[in-house]
Amino acid sequence: MTSTTTTSKPLHLYTYPTPNGIPVAAYLEELKAAYPGVVDYEATHVDLYKGVQKEAWFKKVNPVGQIPALVDYTRSRPGDDDKKDSDSQGFAIFDGVAILFYLAQNYDKEFKFSFNPVKEVEEFSEMVQWLMFTGSGLAPRFGECRYYRVVAPGKGSDHVVNRNVELLRNFFSVLEARLTSRDYLVGRGKGKYSLADMRAWPHIKFHEVTGIESLEEYPNLKAWLERCFERAGSKNGFEVGKA
Amino acid sequence: MTSTTTTSKPLHLYTYPTPNGIPVAAYLEELKAAYPGVVDYEATHVDLYKGVQKEAWFKKVNPVGQIPALVDYTRSRPGDDDKKDSDSQGFAIFDGVAILFYLAQNYDKEFKFSFNPVKEVEEFSEMVQWLMFTGSGLAPRFGECRYYRVVAPGKGSDHVVNRNVELLRNFFSVLEARLTSRDYLVGRGKGKYSLADMRAWPHIKFHEVTGIESLEEYPNLKAWLERCFERAGSKNGFEVGKA
Repeated sequence: MTSTTTTSKPLHLYTYPTPNGIPVAAYLEELKAAYPGVVDYEATHVDLYKGVQKEAWFKKVNPVGQIPALVDYTRSRPGDDDKKDSDSQGFAIFDGVAILFYLAQNYDKEFKFSFNPVKEVEEFSEMVQWLMFTGSGLAPRFGECRYYRVVAPGKGSDHVVNRNVELLRNFFSVLEARLTSRDYLVGRGKGKYSLADMRAWPHIKFHEVTGIESLEEYPNLKAWLERCFERAGSKNGFEVGKA
Repeated sequence: MTSTTTTSKPLHLYTYPTPNGIPVAAYLEELKAAYPGVVDYEATHVDLYKGVQKEAWFKKVNPVGQIPALVDYTRSRPGDDDKKDSDSQGFAIFDGVAILFYLAQNYDKEFKFSFNPVKEVEEFSEMVQWLMFTGSGLAPRFGECRYYRVVAPGKGSDHVVNRNVELLRNFFSVLEARLTSRDYLVGRGKGKYSLADMRAWPHIKFHEVTGIESLEEYPNLKAWLERCFERAGSKNGFEVGKA
């Protein structure tokens, strides 16, 4: 039986290399390289095809039963300070965007991949906006496209399949327009590689499973994907959580 | 032709009273009452049924073409400081969660409906997690349920309709469990009414359009909805943006 266990490293990631899992792994890899000796983590493969994410032990980490989830063993849950049982060890965080936020706030003190919420109010908000663009729009729509093409082909009507890919194409077009004259989604001038890019690019990398077979219509998006993926943190993060 | 215009009030909300629009209006109403003379706003009705959210002027406020969107006339876009044209007036924020974040950071300095990100690290993160629970899970799934029942009935297969409502019921069940022995989603003890509640309750209020006809199976959720909706800010926010 798999279960959560206290490890020697402060952070423990539970994941699988999907477009929702990869951003957190990619950020942890960036932080590990940028803050050597300060940020370190272990990763556990959660086998989505065996339904491990729905097991009781995992739902204590994430009640929604999805990857990614992170446990920070340097903290405890609010109200758990006096408890001694194993359930109270560590502070658990669920949701890909919430974990990126948590890591930025607590482990990226120099804002190397984020923006200062007090001194860079506009850039910080723009980062949140583009994080949400993916979290609340692109990612769920990507999931619907993939589900009716790969998981349950034939279970949706033509209308369902076509509507999903059309709505996904709209998100691709919005990104394409945003990346005109920009290298990255947020930041003055050409922008800075930040959480906003990290949360989004893995979805574009996996575009073929959605029904959008080519990126030729989206030259800015294609160049941005290559720019993001050529980073060592991205390539390393892409491998984290494999079986 | 409707367009963005500089108004006498610092904040301008573009909205429609949907479960995605109401949370921002409800928060602005709470802030207006909690910080009299400091926070004030005007609201413009965006007629979703006429497609106003897809018009060019609106896409300058929100490139995704969705409500809600907010313009803060006390700030300008990064890089726009030297521009004099009307397009550069005000700082525009899109996405319901991103707007709540922005308002909390800049207009709720005493954390009356939020948590201190520096001093209450765990509570702040839990608030972000439950905000994302709605933003990336409950809200998009609510939208799918509503679409295949109300907007395009008969266009999805039985599988599509049943899958959507089953997945939505899972989100309802997670909230129901979270609200055991709690008044609100986040905060020590019984919790504190915060952005996390505000972002979620309007979806529960509109449950009937999704195929979940009754809340009898969810007594904690039902009591919490009543608790949230009895607030003056909620009742006022519920009316904002009507035609």
